[in-house]
Amino acid sequence: MILVINCGSSSLKLAVFNEQLENTASGLAERLGQTDATARFKEPDTEVALPASADHQQALEAMVNTLKSRGLLDGTPLAIGHRVVHGGETFREAALINDEVLRAIEDCASLAPLHNPVNLTGIRATRALFPDVPQVAVFDTAFHHTLPEQAYRYALPDRFYQEWGVRRYGFHGTSHYFMLNETARLLGRPPSTISLISAHLGNGCSVTAIRDGESVDTSMGLTPLEGLVMGTRSGDVDPGLFDFLRNKGVSGEEVHRILNNESGLLGLSGESNDMRILEKLAASGNSQAALAIEVFCFRLARYIGAMCASLDRLDALVFTGGIGENSTHVRARTLSHLKLLGFTLDDARNREHGRNSRNEINHSHSRFPVLVIPTNEERVIAGEALKTANSQ
Amino acid sequence: MILVINCGSSSLKLAVFNEQLENTASGLAERLGQTDATARFKEPDTEVALPASADHQQALEAMVNTLKSRGLLDGTPLAIGHRVVHGGETFREAALINDEVLRAIEDCASLAPLHNPVNLTGIRATRALFPDVPQVAVFDTAFHHTLPEQAYRYALPDRFYQEWGVRRYGFHGTSHYFMLNETARLLGRPPSTISLISAHLGNGCSVTAIRDGESVDTSMGLTPLEGLVMGTRSGDVDPGLFDFLRNKGVSGEEVHRILNNESGLLGLSGESNDMRILEKLAASGNSQAALAIEVFCFRLARYIGAMCASLDRLDALVFTGGIGENSTHVRARTLSHLKLLGFTLDDARNREHGRNSRNEINHSHSRFPVLVIPTNEERVIAGEALKTANSQ
Repeated sequence: MILVINCGSSSLKLAVFNEQLENTASGLAERLGQTDATARFKEPDTEVALPASADHQQALEAMVNTLKSRGLLDGTPLAIGHRVVHGGETFREAALINDEVLRAIEDCASLAPLHNPVNLTGIRATRALFPDVPQVAVFDTAFHHTLPEQAYRYALPDRFYQEWGVRRYGFHGTSHYFMLNETARLLGRPPSTISLISAHLGNGCSVTAIRDGESVDTSMGLTPLEGLVMGTRSGDVDPGLFDFLRNKGVSGEEVHRILNNESGLLGLSGESNDMRILEKLAASGNSQAALAIEVFCFRLARYIGAMCASLDRLDALVFTGGIGENSTHVRARTLSHLKLLGFTLDDARNREHGRNSRNEINHSHSRFPVLVIPTNEERVIAGEALKTANSQ
Repeated sequence: MILVINCGSSSLKLAVFNEQLENTASGLAERLGQTDATARFKEPDTEVALPASADHQQALEAMVNTLKSRGLLDGTPLAIGHRVVHGGETFREAALINDEVLRAIEDCASLAPLHNPVNLTGIRATRALFPDVPQVAVFDTAFHHTLPEQAYRYALPDRFYQEWGVRRYGFHGTSHYFMLNETARLLGRPPSTISLISAHLGNGCSVTAIRDGESVDTSMGLTPLEGLVMGTRSGDVDPGLFDFLRNKGVSGEEVHRILNNESGLLGLSGESNDMRILEKLAASGNSQAALAIEVFCFRLARYIGAMCASLDRLDALVFTGGIGENSTHVRARTLSHLKLLGFTLDDARNREHGRNSRNEINHSHSRFPVLVIPTNEERVIAGEALKTANSQ
């Protein structure tokens, strides 16, 4: 058994894998710290009884007890994997957690003030519950440690990088890494020979250029705010916007909140951050919803073009994440902008999400293959946790 | 005779064209308002005597008097063209200046607080001197009025656009427009049939996608800070940078100043904003200068890839501006990233800046032509001024 823990500010995801890395249970606790905190497992669909205003530690204990009582967790786990958002320049791969590693994760907190502290909360709660189980931190940033300097440096005064670590780090590394391995498997070649563009389109969205098995460019940067249009995040804006809004009397705190929570698909549409809802609205004539989708797809196409600057060969463009796996429309609109680059869709395969065509949705005339591959970040984390624990 | 006036915060450029749009004189006043204000003409090289701490009006009068005394300005000009940075959504083409137009340019000042007020200063000074000559405002933004909505909208709350006009406007329009017309002339086809990517690389830098003679995407946005790495401007950064720096105690005013004046080539190299100096430093082993050049070229290549998302055909990639016209190294490094897209340079033609190969610097095997074309924004402004004055 391997446990995978992913803590958000008021949420905790817990997944269980067997040694064959098959997912045997998944649960989610939400609204932690609030009076209406809840937790439940799916498959088997089971509510978890929580104390009022349960915190992360209490939710974890209740969820583990539910697993045990249902016979889904026998004995102690072999390893526990934790998703940690920011590994800075320190962590180039998954790390077995000890006091030194915990301090290093704390040191990265200024780079991810919303994420790393809550990831640490999850780690501490799990260590208290399973003091003797090897725990492994798996970093969203680690896969991008191979970015070349020209791709990770911003055109800012050198001291910002030297003193404060201001650089492009990139995120969604576990998902992009999974895309690399799945593409290699599908093509029957070693990952180290694969060059691809991976588009992870979920609530957060990022695109990564992978050359010979290494991340060489990616759209997210110092933080997960840069790059593509996302559910509620703006992605790229003119850096001059901040001065413009300051002159309009909008405070820096307010701008940060708006760009993270009220922008993206939600901001443009004024309706929703959920692509499924926006597609229905657009189909029924809502022009703001249609605009939000168009901007989303155009900006993605722009970044796919930009990623080509890091590749001299391309084995595939891969779509993944909730939107990437399920939105026929988003893939079609995005690819409609990429004819000059040589991408051509097969409409029927695209409607079936490539399920009956070995993941392929490109037309046979397409210069490059286009694949749809479901992501599974938790499985990557479970695999990394097991491997790291075993290698000690 | 047509006069062309381009006012900066402490500078005034004055150029004279004849009716064949041939440049007959060019002068520059600098450090206006300071005790060491100076002005001079080149060709013929002539110093202009200025009053101590001359302002824009005094400099203009002194320069016009010098022109008259040298016989370079006979009688009254036919028209006077003014470069105006920001035309907002109001100005889609050059405008004959009257009180209403002046008010509309004032209304755009919140979009370009550093530029539009000083452009107005120049217009008022020129009107006082030549009250009876038709004066025409030529806008940096006008050529980009054809951007489609998906390209000009940011993924921000809709009210930012509706109430404050927050959108991509784009700049360097006169230069990109000139590239369109020169490319059309070189290819012997009407501009309305030409699709190209135009890279204007001067002190400011921007790249524009032109489809069938219309601007359809560009790297600068709400302000001239977005996009490519520039001499002292950062171009794109993670929008999360602002919150990060705020948490480090750096004020919004300070960040704005740093991003505009201390970043870009200057910030990365710590040495200079001048590409010629950086190339010499890099050649002699200065690794920071080499890094600045590499980041500049990589980011440009990324944007050239991004611009392809707006084109289904490409007649040429065009380099212009001081760096674009003169830096063999920048063009070679940029194109080295664009092999997947099908661009291949001819080294010998590139070294000669295309001067002996009808502006072409691409290898004969290149999928797309690559051209070097010297820009001449003042000639465009003179032409627009004459055309607009005559059409009244």
